Amino acid sequence: MLHSREPGGTAIGERIRALLLDDAHAEMDPRTEMLLFAASRAQFVAEVVEPALRGGQIVLSERYVDTSIAYQGVGRGLSVELVRRVNEVATGGVSPDLTILLDIEPADGLQRARAADGKEGRRGRGDRFEQEALAFHARVRAGFLAIAHEEPDRVRIVDGSRAQHVVHDEILRVVEGLLGARGWRASSSS
Amino acid sequence: MLHSREPGGTAIGERIRALLLDDAHAEMDPRTEMLLFAASRAQFVAEVVEPALRGGQIVLSERYVDTSIAYQGVGRGLSVELVRRVNEVATGGVSPDLTILLDIEPADGLQRARAADGKEGRRGRGDRFEQEALAFHARVRAGFLAIAHEEPDRVRIVDGSRAQHVVHDEILRVVEGLLGARGWRASSSS
Repeated sequence: MLHSREPGGTAIGERIRALLLDDAHAEMDPRTEMLLFAASRAQFVAEVVEPALRGGQIVLSERYVDTSIAYQGVGRGLSVELVRRVNEVATGGVSPDLTILLDIEPADGLQRARAADGKEGRRGRGDRFEQEALAFHARVRAGFLAIAHEEPDRVRIVDGSRAQHVVHDEILRVVEGLLGARGWRASSSS
Repeated sequence: MLHSREPGGTAIGERIRALLLDDAHAEMDPRTEMLLFAASRAQFVAEVVEPALRGGQIVLSERYVDTSIAYQGVGRGLSVELVRRVNEVATGGVSPDLTILLDIEPADGLQRARAADGKEGRRGRGDRFEQEALAFHARVRAGFLAIAHEEPDRVRIVDGSRAQHVVHDEILRVVEGLLGARGWRASSSS
């Protein structure tokens, strides 16, 4: 099992991630933002995902294409079709078997993000995305939920507002369900 | 008249440019490279080109979409159609009236780039593109020439192997020809 995240997950991706989150760049155009996420994703697929899949590994990653559809396509108001088209190029069509959508009210989600920043000693302003108004986060959430309703077999909605151990247990059940259906043994290590 | 360059030309673009040219990133996937150029270009169009055009200015820029078609589409072997599709998104269809292709034998061009690096006190290894083999640069040149032959009205080939003042004079004639045809007064200032 390989656990990673994107944007980031590679040396090039981490440099792109730093640029994307830098709150000194309020002038960033939505198309630039979308193309930078796609660039980080292309590197992630080429350098991390494809070699892992070829080696028979299971890849677990945070975010991926749905995030661009929800944040840039819906949140920033770029067309969803346009975001899909660019990401098809970036990923070469590599798509997850299962996506877990941790759903939470935007106000609660932002509060948790700020509390986590505080614990890690970061300043409380948040990154370029956390600084967006609640209305932006409400559009993003609607974007994610729309994807989940279009692709119910791939995307499982998990209520993220509950206690951490409850959410954790539900995710385990969902993942073990998929692995079992594929005849793979679930294991928390390796 | 506004003179700029891309990748670069904006604060965000300069950060992307630094990543693209960094010879520490030999692992960069061709799709990543193409998407990073497109991201820089999107920012350049939104922040520099569109406001200048709205203000009635003439924009003179180095590179632009043809460069991605020649370098990533042909040189790196990505499909030309795929590069066009992504760049259509990046630029929103903003396209130059005139493109001047300074054509030169790759071996001569690289020698000039290295001499210029030496004069400016940079180390002699060259950036990630200058380090490519001659065969790569020969493909890129063929890519540019193919565009010029497809779009003879927009793209004018200027033989860049001649003395600087000869090349300069020819470019001036080509530009003044376009400005005259549009009823604009040519001027080297403003």
